[in-house]
Amino acid sequence: MADLLWPGDERAGDLFSDGALLKAMVDVERAWLAALVSAGVAPSSADAHLDSLVTSDLLERLAREAESGGNPAMALVSWLRGALEDTCPETARWLHRGLTSQDVVDSALMLCARDATTQLRAALVDQIDCLARLVETHSATPMVARTLTQHAVPTTFGLKAAGWLTGVLDAYDDVAALVLPVQAGGAAGTMAGAVELASALPEPLEVVHRMTQDFTARLGLAPSIPWPTSRAAITRLADATVRCTDAWGRIANDVLTLSRPEIGELSEGTGGGSSTMPHKANPVLSTLVRRAALTTPQLAATLHLAAAEAADERSAGPWHAEWATLRTLLRRAVVAGDQTRELLSGLRVHTDRMLHTLAAAREDVHAEQRSLADLTGSAPRRSYVGASAMFVEATLARATGVLAGTVSATARAEESR
Amino acid sequence: MADLLWPGDERAGDLFSDGALLKAMVDVERAWLAALVSAGVAPSSADAHLDSLVTSDLLERLAREAESGGNPAMALVSWLRGALEDTCPETARWLHRGLTSQDVVDSALMLCARDATTQLRAALVDQIDCLARLVETHSATPMVARTLTQHAVPTTFGLKAAGWLTGVLDAYDDVAALVLPVQAGGAAGTMAGAVELASALPEPLEVVHRMTQDFTARLGLAPSIPWPTSRAAITRLADATVRCTDAWGRIANDVLTLSRPEIGELSEGTGGGSSTMPHKANPVLSTLVRRAALTTPQLAATLHLAAAEAADERSAGPWHAEWATLRTLLRRAVVAGDQTRELLSGLRVHTDRMLHTLAAAREDVHAEQRSLADLTGSAPRRSYVGASAMFVEATLARATGVLAGTVSATARAEESR
Amino acid sequence: MADLLWPGDERAGDLFSDGALLKAMVDVERAWLAALVSAGVAPSSADAHLDSLVTSDLLERLAREAESGGNPAMALVSWLRGALEDTCPETARWLHRGLTSQDVVDSALMLCARDATTQLRAALVDQIDCLARLVETHSATPMVARTLTQHAVPTTFGLKAAGWLTGVLDAYDDVAALVLPVQAGGAAGTMAGAVELASALPEPLEVVHRMTQDFTARLGLAPSIPWPTSRAAITRLADATVRCTDAWGRIANDVLTLSRPEIGELSEGTGGGSSTMPHKANPVLSTLVRRAALTTPQLAATLHLAAAEAADERSAGPWHAEWATLRTLLRRAVVAGDQTRELLSGLRVHTDRMLHTLAAAREDVHAEQRSLADLTGSAPRRSYVGASAMFVEATLARATGVLAGTVSATARAEESR
Amino acid sequence: MADLLWPGDERAGDLFSDGALLKAMVDVERAWLAALVSAGVAPSSADAHLDSLVTSDLLERLAREAESGGNPAMALVSWLRGALEDTCPETARWLHRGLTSQDVVDSALMLCARDATTQLRAALVDQIDCLARLVETHSATPMVARTLTQHAVPTTFGLKAAGWLTGVLDAYDDVAALVLPVQAGGAAGTMAGAVELASALPEPLEVVHRMTQDFTARLGLAPSIPWPTSRAAITRLADATVRCTDAWGRIANDVLTLSRPEIGELSEGTGGGSSTMPHKANPVLSTLVRRAALTTPQLAATLHLAAAEAADERSAGPWHAEWATLRTLLRRAVVAGDQTRELLSGLRVHTDRMLHTLAAAREDVHAEQRSLADLTGSAPRRSYVGASAMFVEATLARATGVLAGTVSATARAEESR
Repeated sequence: MADLLWPGDERAGDLFSDGALLKAMVDVERAWLAALVSAGVAPSSADAHLDSLVTSDLLERLAREAESGGNPAMALVSWLRGALEDTCPETARWLHRGLTSQDVVDSALMLCARDATTQLRAALVDQIDCLARLVETHSATPMVARTLTQHAVPTTFGLKAAGWLTGVLDAYDDVAALVLPVQAGGAAGTMAGAVELASALPEPLEVVHRMTQDFTARLGLAPSIPWPTSRAAITRLADATVRCTDAWGRIANDVLTLSRPEIGELSEGTGGGSSTMPHKANPVLSTLVRRAALTTPQLAATLHLAAAEAADERSAGPWHAEWATLRTLLRRAVVAGDQTRELLSGLRVHTDRMLHTLAAAREDVHAEQRSLADLTGSAPRRSYVGASAMFVEATLARATGVLAGTVSATARAEESR
Repeated sequence: MADLLWPGDERAGDLFSDGALLKAMVDVERAWLAALVSAGVAPSSADAHLDSLVTSDLLERLAREAESGGNPAMALVSWLRGALEDTCPETARWLHRGLTSQDVVDSALMLCARDATTQLRAALVDQIDCLARLVETHSATPMVARTLTQHAVPTTFGLKAAGWLTGVLDAYDDVAALVLPVQAGGAAGTMAGAVELASALPEPLEVVHRMTQDFTARLGLAPSIPWPTSRAAITRLADATVRCTDAWGRIANDVLTLSRPEIGELSEGTGGGSSTMPHKANPVLSTLVRRAALTTPQLAATLHLAAAEAADERSAGPWHAEWATLRTLLRRAVVAGDQTRELLSGLRVHTDRMLHTLAAAREDVHAEQRSLADLTGSAPRRSYVGASAMFVEATLARATGVLAGTVSATARAEESR
Repeated sequence: MADLLWPGDERAGDLFSDGALLKAMVDVERAWLAALVSAGVAPSSADAHLDSLVTSDLLERLAREAESGGNPAMALVSWLRGALEDTCPETARWLHRGLTSQDVVDSALMLCARDATTQLRAALVDQIDCLARLVETHSATPMVARTLTQHAVPTTFGLKAAGWLTGVLDAYDDVAALVLPVQAGGAAGTMAGAVELASALPEPLEVVHRMTQDFTARLGLAPSIPWPTSRAAITRLADATVRCTDAWGRIANDVLTLSRPEIGELSEGTGGGSSTMPHKANPVLSTLVRRAALTTPQLAATLHLAAAEAADERSAGPWHAEWATLRTLLRRAVVAGDQTRELLSGLRVHTDRMLHTLAAAREDVHAEQRSLADLTGSAPRRSYVGASAMFVEATLARATGVLAGTVSATARAEESR
Repeated sequence: MADLLWPGDERAGDLFSDGALLKAMVDVERAWLAALVSAGVAPSSADAHLDSLVTSDLLERLAREAESGGNPAMALVSWLRGALEDTCPETARWLHRGLTSQDVVDSALMLCARDATTQLRAALVDQIDCLARLVETHSATPMVARTLTQHAVPTTFGLKAAGWLTGVLDAYDDVAALVLPVQAGGAAGTMAGAVELASALPEPLEVVHRMTQDFTARLGLAPSIPWPTSRAAITRLADATVRCTDAWGRIANDVLTLSRPEIGELSEGTGGGSSTMPHKANPVLSTLVRRAALTTPQLAATLHLAAAEAADERSAGPWHAEWATLRTLLRRAVVAGDQTRELLSGLRVHTDRMLHTLAAAREDVHAEQRSLADLTGSAPRRSYVGASAMFVEATLARATGVLAGTVSATARAEESR
């Protein structure tokens, strides 16, 4: 996938593409079929691999047919049954029995979301690794702190970068805590169909319980009671994702400001060019990351609205609004995460400019310090960066905690040398 | 185009697709080239058709290359120059001279927006036509009015449909008033490049003025001074578009409520089925239209934010956030417009159920009337629908005004019989 | 009114305050009463001034009672009837007859909105006046244009300010075009109550029509058929208001950037201080204006959602969500409009810094010009600001058009000297 | 506090009112003063109670003065110093030393937020308690499940209410996990001022560390390194709050639908009246709860945008946009939480109507079951509610877990009898 109107989109690869979604839906149907067979509800002749049935020209067709049923699962089931009818009649008969289209769509969305959050976590870990180095390197690099755009007091670039790192660590905590639940509720979240199917066996409720566990395990999702109109899993996913773009957007904003030519304290590793001005080195990565951060909060708001308006046992409209919104939100976050990784790993820190700005502002940025002199009576501390080192250390300790439990791509690359 | 996660998406056809955007960008470059030649600024050997250069495999490549420059125009220009270098060296030399990538992207977006608004207007006119008939037919069809979900007083279905029509007419007025401006400002909105190029001719400013008029006319856009960070054209477009989905969403919500089986006063022409429940006839079109209406306001909010944060002479992020947001907004509106057209033309009105509900609620819905009796002393008017007919008439007059100036697709179809 | 958490809020005075809303609701009831009497529907003894009944301790009481009915009009009507019962029994009997609470709330909101838009227009006109002077003064003041935060080509501060002016003119056009309609529909928009009341007279529909015209004229609102669930009047008001904050936010962003100490090309007339750093002169007005612009688009999105979900003949929730949202939106806009007026009138332009930056960037900002040299063969134009003067002139002409039709506060102040 | 335009607002009492915020800011200044004294940095003569200085007429004055500094803390500090100068000169000298206005505002916001989350938790626990009873009572009450507005299959009202309970439990988990951090960073988050003040003592960094712990403990907030532009604490608070209104909005939507007269399966304990229609019993609480849920997601989006745009060491605009947005969000949630508590405790369940609807739809709602018959060969299970009881039990177990750790107001009331 690529997108002329969202440069960098291809960084998200196949994530949530129609193809990925279709594959995920087929995986869901297959896992359910296997669970039916494994539980003894369906005959073993009903089990079958379904992947080979799916061809690329199917996508366009299903997309078109998705409209009449209102979702893509119905068209898929009907097509699969047709394709299986002659060669695997038992599979055709048992396919999708006990499920409803919402089970297929929601579980498939969760499978795609898992790929997305895996990529988000990887990007966050790499950023944590990279930022931790940056913070360490510059823990004593003096620069001016700016508040309301004006020079305030001295700080260190290490502390500024530690602030960035804090945002990334906060986002990591939220993404790492996400739970992506399976959806298996049947027509209205009661599992009535599945229980009916199991009713020839002893203890049908127990059979259905085990079957759902089996289904969940096959998909690698988290167990859950049905959640057709309880959408916290979606909104938590959305909120954690926006927390990522919040953290990255804030970094991008800082880089954009500090790479203004009049300031020049930071610059991107490789700036973007101009179609007409040969001299320009635009902070393109920061620009594109900030772009994402300006759009994602409103996408999450849509998902919250869909959750709040999720009436009945399946909502008419709110549920349908979630799918593409979630895709756009997660793709944009994955793209921005990768761009931020590249931005950070290539970031150039111009310590000379930092020093120069601070020196030029010396009178102003020590005004507060002078105003405290009459209170203390002691000689002013030279650097006036207070407890910066202490805060830097605390932030690095958090980073170490995360990195100890994971291995970043950078570390992996180094190890493999 | 089709989209598994936005069923019905193919109704918007090629609108704002990468292919459409690419074609529009090439049209912009070509129009500018022609204007340069026509003004005598560039030699006539510089003019060339560019369409044939564009092949479908170009899309993926440009999308990938768009990232390093931050927008798709730069990659296109560089590719076109390369492709022209040998065969049309003068074209390669003069291509894009005096323009900047924002000119190309913004003008191309406006060209795509024109296609979108043309489709929106057509859908609105057809809906006005269809609704006007519905209003006329049912101007005296009694039904109960509902406020805060409860039975209030009698009304007519004609008046309810006139309310829908009012929303559609309001949206039509806003869409019809839209102005889609050309963007031609050069590197920073000063046209310095163009003036420089024209400086060999007498009165270069006058030459550039005429050249811009020529360029604008070739594209069929509205003349405008450069607007790189004055984004009212975008936000007006967005607001008018959301006004469309507001009007349609409100209709969809009414249909969803009134087609509940317990109410049964309306139903969609052909309901959608269920993957597991054979009896179901779901109000799928209403569901999908409401879906769109729940998402578009937040997309317009993003475009307003982009306008408010549009700093400098080209913004770093806000501008970039507009493109895909505008595409999604307009495609969803075009899809919803077409679905609403189909919904309205197939809508089934169950006047018997309306009568039945009203009769059953007779005691309640005339309570207000009884409470007024002591004030008037006159016998209560039977129908108690007040000035409904007067309001219906006023609404139909507005519809007639619009339809007189246009010819709806339905009318065209009838004429061609 | 004042608000610790929205500094500057008192600039909006009493606008949309509970007191203002109460007064507006009483005005609506009074106007309707007068129209009933004037039409001969109610006896002349029913007419009465109601203002004197309203005391300040009523507010808290009505606010508390508003909840049980779901809106403030019901509590007011019930209170007024009680207060009138003994002294003006006919007034008590006829009060509110034929209206519904939505008529009272919506019409009162429109009255408050009129005060808001009057203030918005006044602020916009003053800004246009002030910006036109700024543009004229600096039409030839050279400065560097910045794109994606980097130096691009030369421009003039006049052209930059003309861009600001364009935004303000666009907003003015939208605000000036607003229509604020009366709401008079009775229980469900049919006017059945009013017609019933008029049914003792000949031609009751005609009577009601005249009565509504009278009511509308007394309130000074625009005539309209009832619009209980057709909410374009609200969303247009919201969109035009956000267009104002968009325009002001963009100015504020530019001032924030250009008043950074490293750039120093602009500064606010009087900067804000710091609680701890004596030297600081913060760009507080720009900060507070930008604050508003970051919040209003989402408020307008809420109003669009309310419009799209406005089902039945009165919606259960969406309507209720509009009131406070509209108040916050309009108060914030009025505050930001006044702050922008002050910001612009006090703005200090440091032409020396502009020149200095441009000179220092000379090599870079003429790179494009040099790259065009081989095409033209003619000597480069010194200033390289292209058609800036032409665009400035066109913008000033628009401003003159607006100012010719209005008299700005500045002009009034000058005249009165 | 009360609000004509947000009926029910007084349920949030003084929460985040100007008075509450002022008190919180004074508490912050006092806690810091006490910490300075306790650490031996300031003389013990500097300590003083400040509460008595604060009079009600101060609010208006501070609100007005807040604008020039851009925030309310600066005006407060300056006023307090003036008020203390003569009587407590040492307090006046030491007040606020080492803090910055953002420390005061942010910490005060967190204190107000603590009051809000305490109320949210209490409301959630009461709802959990109430819903658990409802679920238990109706675990076997049959009703029809509805998907896309149409009858689907049978379910139980217990399972529907268990779905509501799940939403409330999810929200509870998120609110209970919130951490509200202290802000103490000085001018730019380095604590340079505090360290300077402590520099006359041995180990000044250690002194500042203990002083901050003391300050934090006095306020009862969570320890944190400074977070002037790391705003996850704010966005997490916002997201958890919206998750509350999501859960309540979804309940409200269900009640609104099921209390339509044609359905009549639920009704509010006491419906709201009408200003003109004596018979009406409107679902007012549901209406007002849904109202809140339609507005909060956009407020949270604003807080995320503020987080993403939080540049420099204190942002110019984004930070300022947070305060009132947070207040509105939290007040609305507290009001809606209390309304939902009342809604649930008074909810009337019409099991006869549920049975009647289900019986009338019998043919349809067992269609799926019949279609499964050929697969199983066994006799259909009578109820066809599948594993509903199992899901009900799992949900009740979650509720019990929460209730075991808390004591709900209902339980407290019962105990005290």
